[in-house]
Amino acid sequence: MAPAPVGPRYGDSIFAGGEHVNAEMFSLTYGTIVRQLLTDLEEVEEVNRQLDQMGYNIGIRLVDEFLVKSDVSRCVAFRETAEVIAKVGLKMFLGLSASVTNWNADGTCCSMVLEDNPFVDFVELPDTCQGLYYCNILSGVIRGALEMVSMETQVTWARDMLRGDDAFELRVKLLKQVPEEYPYKDDK
Amino acid sequence: MAPAPVGPRYGDSIFAGGEHVNAEMFSLTYGTIVRQLLTDLEEVEEVNRQLDQMGYNIGIRLVDEFLVKSDVSRCVAFRETAEVIAKVGLKMFLGLSASVTNWNADGTCCSMVLEDNPFVDFVELPDTCQGLYYCNILSGVIRGALEMVSMETQVTWARDMLRGDDAFELRVKLLKQVPEEYPYKDDK
Repeated sequence: MAPAPVGPRYGDSIFAGGEHVNAEMFSLTYGTIVRQLLTDLEEVEEVNRQLDQMGYNIGIRLVDEFLVKSDVSRCVAFRETAEVIAKVGLKMFLGLSASVTNWNADGTCCSMVLEDNPFVDFVELPDTCQGLYYCNILSGVIRGALEMVSMETQVTWARDMLRGDDAFELRVKLLKQVPEEYPYKDDK
Repeated sequence: MAPAPVGPRYGDSIFAGGEHVNAEMFSLTYGTIVRQLLTDLEEVEEVNRQLDQMGYNIGIRLVDEFLVKSDVSRCVAFRETAEVIAKVGLKMFLGLSASVTNWNADGTCCSMVLEDNPFVDFVELPDTCQGLYYCNILSGVIRGALEMVSMETQVTWARDMLRGDDAFELRVKLLKQVPEEYPYKDDK
């Protein structure tokens, strides 16, 4: 059976079918997490790390649901997988899509560029939060999702609108691909 | 100008217009809050209190947005306000609607009954969380929203599907109504 084609036509139809939560409600709810972590933890670096870890735990949970709902067959190539996440996955789960650009020569590193994202409605960072990557949960989600399809990656922010940049840009770097192996980790 | 009529026909059209986040993404994100609080705080009662407070902070933020988007004029009667929250507000922000029932004789106390809610996808409570009101953020949201329209309320769970009940039922009791007064509280 040929793999299902990938493109914008998926996103909309899937998106229209499921249950949704208003983006502002989501944004405010996410804000309570970040505020809680900032209160509990002393170091902003540690908040970044926790957000990433929370995202990772979410990402590994979302993959199965994604594969069921999207009718996309399991991806094996990193390039194709990145496109599916950017065009279908982000659309399905966050109501937005990203463009995939800036591939390196050997196809192991790319950027996902978002013009908007539902985590940051209402958000302005005070000066005391200079080092905070507010949306770090999202990089964790992508890292977790990729790990569940056997791609170990490093995901970092290259641009962040909350830091004055003109877009959100995630740099996604493939570290290792382990086909046919399922490194389920403790959900901790 | 006559006040805009209130009814289900609002919900859908508003809902279709805004930005949305997939309910599973929301549920998992909310789950990270609850887990974080359970880890950080020793008492389940304290987790319930914190969730309620977080919801309250969200509720007072959502009211303005609701009034702008819904085209509903500011409600003055408790009975009407409860209906607007259940039929329009919950639909707009959480993609669901509740039925309003069990009014007491003098119209100061009612139930909002939800057959489903997006906070609880994937959730099963372990035995160690017996006293937890997992969705307590929602009672806080409703309490906060009502306070911003000058209605001081007490909102408690009468039924909870995570505790084996057949629905989610919030008991909303009007304690005091202070017309023309705006008790903005510190967002803490």
